[in-house]
Amino acid sequence: MFVPALLFFDASPEALKVPLAMLTIFAVAKLLAELFERLGQPGIVGEILAGVLIGPSALGWIAPNELLSSLSDIGVMFLLFRVGLEVKPAELLKLGGTAAIVACCGVIVPFLMGWGLLVWWGQPSIEAIFVGAAMVATSVGITAQVLSSKGLLQERASQIILAAAVIDDVLGLLVLASVSAMAKGQVNVLEISLTVGLAVVFVLLIATMGNRAVGKVMPRIQESMQVAEAEFALAIILLLALSVLAVYVGVAAIVGAFFAGMALSGTVGQRVHDLSHGASELLVPFFLAGIGLHVDLSAFHDSSMILLAVILLFLACISKFIGCGLSALPLGKSDAFKIGVGMIPRGEVGMVVAQIGLTMGVISQNIYGVVVFMAVATTLVAPPLLKIAFADVKPVIVPEGVGA
Amino acid sequence: MFVPALLFFDASPEALKVPLAMLTIFAVAKLLAELFERLGQPGIVGEILAGVLIGPSALGWIAPNELLSSLSDIGVMFLLFRVGLEVKPAELLKLGGTAAIVACCGVIVPFLMGWGLLVWWGQPSIEAIFVGAAMVATSVGITAQVLSSKGLLQERASQIILAAAVIDDVLGLLVLASVSAMAKGQVNVLEISLTVGLAVVFVLLIATMGNRAVGKVMPRIQESMQVAEAEFALAIILLLALSVLAVYVGVAAIVGAFFAGMALSGTVGQRVHDLSHGASELLVPFFLAGIGLHVDLSAFHDSSMILLAVILLFLACISKFIGCGLSALPLGKSDAFKIGVGMIPRGEVGMVVAQIGLTMGVISQNIYGVVVFMAVATTLVAPPLLKIAFADVKPVIVPEGVGA
Repeated sequence: MFVPALLFFDASPEALKVPLAMLTIFAVAKLLAELFERLGQPGIVGEILAGVLIGPSALGWIAPNELLSSLSDIGVMFLLFRVGLEVKPAELLKLGGTAAIVACCGVIVPFLMGWGLLVWWGQPSIEAIFVGAAMVATSVGITAQVLSSKGLLQERASQIILAAAVIDDVLGLLVLASVSAMAKGQVNVLEISLTVGLAVVFVLLIATMGNRAVGKVMPRIQESMQVAEAEFALAIILLLALSVLAVYVGVAAIVGAFFAGMALSGTVGQRVHDLSHGASELLVPFFLAGIGLHVDLSAFHDSSMILLAVILLFLACISKFIGCGLSALPLGKSDAFKIGVGMIPRGEVGMVVAQIGLTMGVISQNIYGVVVFMAVATTLVAPPLLKIAFADVKPVIVPEGVGA
Repeated sequence: MFVPALLFFDASPEALKVPLAMLTIFAVAKLLAELFERLGQPGIVGEILAGVLIGPSALGWIAPNELLSSLSDIGVMFLLFRVGLEVKPAELLKLGGTAAIVACCGVIVPFLMGWGLLVWWGQPSIEAIFVGAAMVATSVGITAQVLSSKGLLQERASQIILAAAVIDDVLGLLVLASVSAMAKGQVNVLEISLTVGLAVVFVLLIATMGNRAVGKVMPRIQESMQVAEAEFALAIILLLALSVLAVYVGVAAIVGAFFAGMALSGTVGQRVHDLSHGASELLVPFFLAGIGLHVDLSAFHDSSMILLAVILLFLACISKFIGCGLSALPLGKSDAFKIGVGMIPRGEVGMVVAQIGLTMGVISQNIYGVVVFMAVATTLVAPPLLKIAFADVKPVIVPEGVGA
């Protein structure tokens, strides 16, 4: 094949790599999304499957790498930021009590089921504990994308899912800190308490005071600014700053991004919505396809692993559905169903826990593959179920650029 | 220092790295932009200097890395895409003749001056030739950002600058292919001709037919699509596809991105403008600060290098100013001045040439530092000069989201 300029410059193949990988992922993701929409299925499932298709376990065109995972991180941060913009903190706080119960049950039941299965399967105790911890995770990005694209974020069930996911993240920190300390063989209760305490303070402070503080300070700064698009620039700075702070105190960057959006929700104009939407439309496909990219079917040469993966997937769905759904039953069957389904996706959060276990040497390569399979498959199961669960709701017709 | 969650998870510092680097760069860039705007200077200079400030030669907070350079690449692609959206191909083609003369003189004069200086300085002949090649480059991104943010893209001088920059890129390919072949000691005229011929065919085909072809095909595809924001998704796919094709035939990715914008200029609605604007507002600071990050003052422990750098910078400015300005004189003094100034920035394009020379071992580390200094300094010189040059033009008041 004649590769013209590449003959001359060593730098050119490098220059080709980034846009080519982006083109492949973006185009295949949108193609499959379109296909799924035409089949009456959520497009998001197509975008995740696009990653599986072009990833190492199928076509092998693209392998996960640092750049793609960074694009994915930024993409999901903007996704949650946009979702936060549409949420009123006061309303979310009102639902805090219910959300806390939902989150707690959504932690305990999955942990016990994941841990129990692995112990019953005959795996080492610490490995079983880590798989339990991975079952605790909730990837709110997947559910948020479905709800946002259908204009369903204002539903009570949607708001409880968002609040519960934030609390879930803090509880997940507690679980992960505890099991990591166990794996290291040195459980320091003071350190764990400090860690979790700091996360709790961060969440409570920003959730309760962020909106008012930003509403007071932001317009003043912005008025005096002369750079173009000052409002959007300030919004990005707040988004990144709270994300950094969130990671620093131990919760996910997207929790910070969500809080940044929520803090700005009463303050910023439509322009910031539109511009954020542009950034997230560009980047979210890398988040979705990026989840699919991580599927590695090489763990499944052994048929007993396939069986384990299927059972774990079943338990992953049923445990969140029961744990979160039952605890939301006082709100009525319909909301309980929505909440139970909306908390199912484990996605990138479950994969991070498995990755930490792998790095610490307490999860074997095979079990890692099984957990990743569970994490990805739950993101594929949830969107169609969400579609059914929310079928009774007439979506709010959102002005272009507010919803998807 | 108590770093809570980081105590437990090996993955966390990694998770902190990306948002922290992004926050630092974005916030410092916007801060200095604001400062410069208040001092009556172009904000873009502040954003580039932000990179110098936090980069290895000053504070040392951030070093250039693959992620940042990818964000920068995507950022400048979206910048040129947006600029392309505002350009009518028919009008640009009308100016093609003048632009070709401007581009040719803007290649010959800088090459001769750069080469001549290095030879006179006593450097090896092949090194002098490479520095000459680096002097040829034009970083249209810098000028485009200034013109776009001031609503000046519809000016005749602006359009000639854009067209000349595209032609300059093709000529730059010819120069770079030739000098690279010389450095390897095997000049194959057929290969060089094929390479450049392909680039010429690509540019001519897309510039002349792209707009009509897209205008016919795009609305049909889009109408039948069901995914959300289908128009923007198609625009991104075209942007990435033409960028890949451009790199493949040997011109810069931004030339492809610019063509994609131009091809879509008659077709897409305001929504695509707004969403693209969001992506570029997020990413362009990484392009601008990224240029500054590459400054490495360690080349200048030797005072003779400082002298060489200053002379090279002077020649870099004067050579484009004379080469492009004089050849545009038939359009009148005012336009000639604008065009001469607008072609001065070398930026990332000049740095790529120097990088290739360094990789091939024909440019020494010291001379590399000098060329990078010249490339960055020209991007700092041009914006204030552009401000003066365009002072007589009343900027078109553009609706929010089209200019700015």
